[in-house]
Amino acid sequence: MHKNEGMISPLEKKRLSYVPQIPPLLKNIGSLSLEEVSRAKAPVAELKSLFPRIFSAPSYRVGKGKGKAARAQKVGVLFSGGPAAGGHNVLAGLFDALKELNSRSQLIGFLNGAAGVLESHSKELSAKMIDGVRNLGGFDLIGSGRTKIETAEQLAAAAETVRKYSLDALVIIGGDDSNTNAAVLAEYFLQHNVSTRVIGVPKTIDGDLRSQEIELSFGFDSACKTYAELIGNIARDAKSSRKYYHFIKLMGRSASHITLECALATHPNLALVGEERKTLAEIVRQIADLVRKRKQAGKEYGVILVPEGLIEFMPEVKQLISELNKILAEGKPPAAVESLLADAQRQTFRLLPEKIQQQLLFDRDPHGNVQVSQIATEELLIELVKRELKDLKWSAQPHFFGYEGRCCLPSNFDANYGYALGRLAALAIKEEVTGVICAIQFLAKSPEKWALRLVSIIQLMCLEMRKGKQKPVIQKALVDIKGKVFAQYQKVRSTDELEDRYRYPGPIQFFDPDVSDSVPLTLER
Amino acid sequence: MHKNEGMISPLEKKRLSYVPQIPPLLKNIGSLSLEEVSRAKAPVAELKSLFPRIFSAPSYRVGKGKGKAARAQKVGVLFSGGPAAGGHNVLAGLFDALKELNSRSQLIGFLNGAAGVLESHSKELSAKMIDGVRNLGGFDLIGSGRTKIETAEQLAAAAETVRKYSLDALVIIGGDDSNTNAAVLAEYFLQHNVSTRVIGVPKTIDGDLRSQEIELSFGFDSACKTYAELIGNIARDAKSSRKYYHFIKLMGRSASHITLECALATHPNLALVGEERKTLAEIVRQIADLVRKRKQAGKEYGVILVPEGLIEFMPEVKQLISELNKILAEGKPPAAVESLLADAQRQTFRLLPEKIQQQLLFDRDPHGNVQVSQIATEELLIELVKRELKDLKWSAQPHFFGYEGRCCLPSNFDANYGYALGRLAALAIKEEVTGVICAIQFLAKSPEKWALRLVSIIQLMCLEMRKGKQKPVIQKALVDIKGKVFAQYQKVRSTDELEDRYRYPGPIQFFDPDVSDSVPLTLER
Repeated sequence: MHKNEGMISPLEKKRLSYVPQIPPLLKNIGSLSLEEVSRAKAPVAELKSLFPRIFSAPSYRVGKGKGKAARAQKVGVLFSGGPAAGGHNVLAGLFDALKELNSRSQLIGFLNGAAGVLESHSKELSAKMIDGVRNLGGFDLIGSGRTKIETAEQLAAAAETVRKYSLDALVIIGGDDSNTNAAVLAEYFLQHNVSTRVIGVPKTIDGDLRSQEIELSFGFDSACKTYAELIGNIARDAKSSRKYYHFIKLMGRSASHITLECALATHPNLALVGEERKTLAEIVRQIADLVRKRKQAGKEYGVILVPEGLIEFMPEVKQLISELNKILAEGKPPAAVESLLADAQRQTFRLLPEKIQQQLLFDRDPHGNVQVSQIATEELLIELVKRELKDLKWSAQPHFFGYEGRCCLPSNFDANYGYALGRLAALAIKEEVTGVICAIQFLAKSPEKWALRLVSIIQLMCLEMRKGKQKPVIQKALVDIKGKVFAQYQKVRSTDELEDRYRYPGPIQFFDPDVSDSVPLTLER
Repeated sequence: MHKNEGMISPLEKKRLSYVPQIPPLLKNIGSLSLEEVSRAKAPVAELKSLFPRIFSAPSYRVGKGKGKAARAQKVGVLFSGGPAAGGHNVLAGLFDALKELNSRSQLIGFLNGAAGVLESHSKELSAKMIDGVRNLGGFDLIGSGRTKIETAEQLAAAAETVRKYSLDALVIIGGDDSNTNAAVLAEYFLQHNVSTRVIGVPKTIDGDLRSQEIELSFGFDSACKTYAELIGNIARDAKSSRKYYHFIKLMGRSASHITLECALATHPNLALVGEERKTLAEIVRQIADLVRKRKQAGKEYGVILVPEGLIEFMPEVKQLISELNKILAEGKPPAAVESLLADAQRQTFRLLPEKIQQQLLFDRDPHGNVQVSQIATEELLIELVKRELKDLKWSAQPHFFGYEGRCCLPSNFDANYGYALGRLAALAIKEEVTGVICAIQFLAKSPEKWALRLVSIIQLMCLEMRKGKQKPVIQKALVDIKGKVFAQYQKVRSTDELEDRYRYPGPIQFFDPDVSDSVPLTLER
């Protein structure tokens, strides 16, 4: 019996027995094999010197065939970064498939992320443990963490751990950085004669781990559906109470995918999209115009979505921040900073409310940089629009949704997707490949039609300047403002400004296929 | 077709056809009659002079019988105050029953609350309109507002409107103040030979409109379930990410019912309950101890629930605020206030972070009073606990949930309850009673077992000093810290502090009776 059985909620108890829908092929991993596929594009040539061993590694499609023998495998697994719904199902899918292939296989969970590898902190996952988290939210069975395995010492420590445990494979469930890390480890292990293979699984609620090969990471759907539920409720409140503008900031540090998905789901009066790269002044004017126009139409309420990463896209704010970082790095006292700024940047600085100015000058990260993510963009916008509209009566309420959606119960989509990814990882392990990420395609279709791939991670990578050094990275996928999905939003945007065409999706449902099996709206069809 | 049909979400579309479960008696209002019941208690004698006409009005139980003839009635209805899930179903129940009784009856919705009555701003509700909002959230079909009908001019204007419309009855759907208002109007209409009767319906998500007769208002269940969903998600995140204390403030200006309900549903590490009347210093120490103890147990995360009204229960803060109000009313400049405070109050004032001090001195309501509700209690507590634990590494995240739960889709409980209340109001209209509030009892049981009452509002009322005057009010019901429900929480409280017994209720479900038909946990059985 699960330790907290008495405490488990009735809905969770029900969800434990949900049987994820998966592609028919994945039902019998033992009868599958891999087939090399031609690459979508050649890897970036400069990566060859950093990744000599995996640089030319192929990607695979999955098909019926004999494949390798299903010998007993000892597999490590870890979560990296923020939680995402469906994570426990990756563990369940991996566990089930490993045991089906060979009952002597073992699955070792490293605790609290990569730190568990460095510190040899782990627990072997049992059927009882897995059965206690099927289709449930969170990463709490083994925890997660943000430690990276990057330095020479860390790489050596990781190699020591996987050798000590005699791991055949290590599965890393994480975002862009963690999958980059998976490639680095795969290469390092090959170079150092460590026989452990490394498999990546794409996770992030932000939805910015996307490419031609990877349509979406798991967790995005459930998080967006939870935010959309709340946005819908708030929009209905705005329309019922008729007295507030709700400024709703949504997680997504880099890209605006979450905001775009929620905008399509709920039809707010305005959804800002960072990737449009408007200036702060333009955005303030845009919102002020909206409030004015709605006032003329007798509407003193509204709903505005603000992506968390918005401020970093604003050209003049970006310049200001880089200038500030430079000046502060020279050890200049914060009080002197304003006078040292170039005219254009000083103007931007002066536009900001005092509280934000103070934050920029005094709240710095360990590297001395301005902590852009700490800036309450939703409050900044309210303050500046209030200044712009000082003669107009209107009221605003700020909100920020993030933690609410990372550990929700996975939607059927994420429960299916996570479980399928776990089983696909087991196939990668049976077939003894390394440096690949599990990729499932045609996600907008029903699971029977999903296509299975193991994509060479190197294919997703490029080089980027970080802290003055060329570093191999998987670039975060931004919202393509020339793409089909954004065009879909553009089509309704101006109508939604004035007319209240709010859509109220309601809470995630699990028990009626008409409403429980929907897929993300931003998945390209 | 509903105007926004194209925009309606799939779940809403499904919900439109949900058939609320109601007590069998309510299925045929035409065959019902009323029977006087002896009062639970005598009305407060001092009310007699204010309410000579309705002072001795009886309460009723509903039973089978002939009752009055079902003549055509013209009925007005309005929402008052913040929205609550189930409100549209009150309209639907009222509409359906009125039309069943006599197809020539009319239902007029006054727009945006009592202001609609004062301004004769209304629309007649049609079957099409009602069919477009069945089982949906919000009050947006007719809107709501906070205008009260209190002054002699307002009372006269209301009388003029109901006469002009030839209303047989006016149904007021609202909280304690609005139902007080209903009694005032009922009395006024009787005294001024206006034939319109007034019926109250108990609404408020806060759950503080409770008495021996009224077990609960509609909207509480859905709001609490929405908050509990989010609290559960955040608790799971805390346990997965292991790095934050989440301070979650929950709506409920006066009483802590919402917090208590959510605490029973989710088992946070601590739920503060205003009614315990602890001092600010005690609460800060309590939280600091909790953080310290959990740190010793290797846990650097946690979940703490904070009722919105907490600060007004703290004895020393209450004193400080009343002192501040006095000094500020004398026109003393804010800068001089600190020196004018008595020693004990000055000490309390100095304990507060500067931001809160400034709020107390400068943010005043139109009457010059300190705006206690504007104080971000969750941030205040974080700041003070940080001060107390300055040598300890810990991080906190504030949250505030309120608007998220007022306009959600009604749970099956609130959909049933709201619809039943609407039908019961129609019976009150058929039977031509006035000054009564609709009351349904045994709500913890299934709808077949609910008991139906029409309670004379005067019985719920008492006199209270407000702004130096004796005013008739329905007292807000606070959490009874000597009662059974609080004892139930006390039983788990200390264990929940250290052990993580978080319970994750998940989103409201509608399609599986095992999980969709639950009732509030704080309903006494």
